Amino acid sequence: MQKFSDYSAHIEKTLRDLDFPGGALAGLYEPISYAMSAGGKRLRPSLTLMAADAFGGAAEKAESAAAGLEMFHNFTLLHDDVMDNSDMRRGRPSVHARWDVNTAILSGDTMLTLATMQVARVDGSILREVLDSFNDMAVKVYEGQRLDMDFETSDNVSLDDYLHMISLKTGILLGTSARIGALIGGASKEDADRMTEYGVMLGNAFQIQDDWLDVFGDSTTFGKPIGGDINNNKKSFLLLSALASSTPEAEALREAMKLPAGPTKIKTVTRIYEKLDMTARCRDAISAYSSKAIAALKATSLSDGNRAPFRLLVEKLTGRKK
Amino acid sequence: MQKFSDYSAHIEKTLRDLDFPGGALAGLYEPISYAMSAGGKRLRPSLTLMAADAFGGAAEKAESAAAGLEMFHNFTLLHDDVMDNSDMRRGRPSVHARWDVNTAILSGDTMLTLATMQVARVDGSILREVLDSFNDMAVKVYEGQRLDMDFETSDNVSLDDYLHMISLKTGILLGTSARIGALIGGASKEDADRMTEYGVMLGNAFQIQDDWLDVFGDSTTFGKPIGGDINNNKKSFLLLSALASSTPEAEALREAMKLPAGPTKIKTVTRIYEKLDMTARCRDAISAYSSKAIAALKATSLSDGNRAPFRLLVEKLTGRKK
Repeated sequence: MQKFSDYSAHIEKTLRDLDFPGGALAGLYEPISYAMSAGGKRLRPSLTLMAADAFGGAAEKAESAAAGLEMFHNFTLLHDDVMDNSDMRRGRPSVHARWDVNTAILSGDTMLTLATMQVARVDGSILREVLDSFNDMAVKVYEGQRLDMDFETSDNVSLDDYLHMISLKTGILLGTSARIGALIGGASKEDADRMTEYGVMLGNAFQIQDDWLDVFGDSTTFGKPIGGDINNNKKSFLLLSALASSTPEAEALREAMKLPAGPTKIKTVTRIYEKLDMTARCRDAISAYSSKAIAALKATSLSDGNRAPFRLLVEKLTGRKK
Repeated sequence: MQKFSDYSAHIEKTLRDLDFPGGALAGLYEPISYAMSAGGKRLRPSLTLMAADAFGGAAEKAESAAAGLEMFHNFTLLHDDVMDNSDMRRGRPSVHARWDVNTAILSGDTMLTLATMQVARVDGSILREVLDSFNDMAVKVYEGQRLDMDFETSDNVSLDDYLHMISLKTGILLGTSARIGALIGGASKEDADRMTEYGVMLGNAFQIQDDWLDVFGDSTTFGKPIGGDINNNKKSFLLLSALASSTPEAEALREAMKLPAGPTKIKTVTRIYEKLDMTARCRDAISAYSSKAIAALKATSLSDGNRAPFRLLVEKLTGRKK
């Protein structure tokens, strides 16, 4: 058994070895190389390697698919950054800021096809199943992004709508990363389904932790400025939970949302969240999703030893500061 | 044996029957439905059906892949229209003009994945080969689009550079459409390669005809205003051929390129093209590519009867007014 950090080091090396054409086509491939070298937790491909290893000692065989899942994730970031007009990503200019919007669109498209090609490098016996899982997941991620954008201009977003959206946009990609690894490792259909469930629940917990960190994190460890969601009136877990509470604070929050972006707004909204003890509310939700992830894991045929890194990963991610 | 128009009517019906989710996800799928219903020649999917029929009487079996190839083509149009800032497409507002840029990006991404899913609906025995052909083609189309964009700001584009670019951006998609149809029909590897060559050459001829129509066509039959390429100093077959000629007209053309967009510029450049007899120059190039397409077709194991619609298609497309 290896730890998550061993798998993430493994995939980091695989990604570093990816080779892209240059010359006349540098304008297409340099932004891809730039995006793929930006680091990050490598959560998705590490999950793929970990699952392939747990089910069949097959981490090496899953390298290409793992790299494809990370490339898919990075493709969505390129296009999301254009759509959200986000000029920074992991402490560096995002691709459209460093180059231009057209480059982000076209190099992003290229990444999607390259990702599909890499995921397809699996045994013929599981090609159809892996490919279907990947494509179904991709469509759900787009659906999640569409809902997320539509939420911005809607006054009618419920907490359930939000939870559905994050499972599409975040959960299912983590679930499919675990699933494809399991399939490559030779897992049964039932075990693959359980690993998918594990990943979806882990992803949902992860996203709520992310929402919490955006308010209560430390900007130096979190890697981006605190309060961005508050300034943008982003429909996060915290905002929607707080608005749904039948308290005077919900009304105060509605007023605070009208404030212009800035330190006063961040301070005012943060205080409301503190009064409503949103930290405990987030902790409860994260804990509920984590329990579901662990339950799905326990339902697999994996040995305790092989389950261990997945259990540790839940603890690591839900206790994280970044 | 059927005619091209029978196959295009067939695929038109298949495309009309495509069903997309609505409800909360209408914002994602309505633009896709809009883009797919805009008509056009349906050249690519018709080629797929025609090849599947010629090699194995398997037009029905190729329906899904054909629809996928048309969807891929339309996805590239959505994103190209954003990149080129083109607000009209086939006489209607383009998707980003009718909705917005974010919608064109995200619905376009969705079309790429849906296209891949549809192309993948082939027998398991040819899945890997069809998928590889499709993905390799997609990457080449992006490379062609990148070169096309880079040409805009370059003073060093040769006619050979241009011919390479159009074979990436246009030829290979037509070639792959024919190839995938042939594979579905049960063609040998050699025949599939020859049909690819047929399609690539047909596509190159088609593109040069398009460049010619942009100058000498009739705007009512061509479906878009004449002279757009001239106004934009677009590096077309005509512009690059004329600039490469060691004539006084080449110098006059360089001067005319500095004129502001408008009727005077169009008239001036068109006259230079007339003096250089660019119509004959285009006709020769189209004829050379057409001959190569026919030669590739003749090298296949198809009977004369089964070759006929492909031969007729070359004549139809290179003699077209729209």
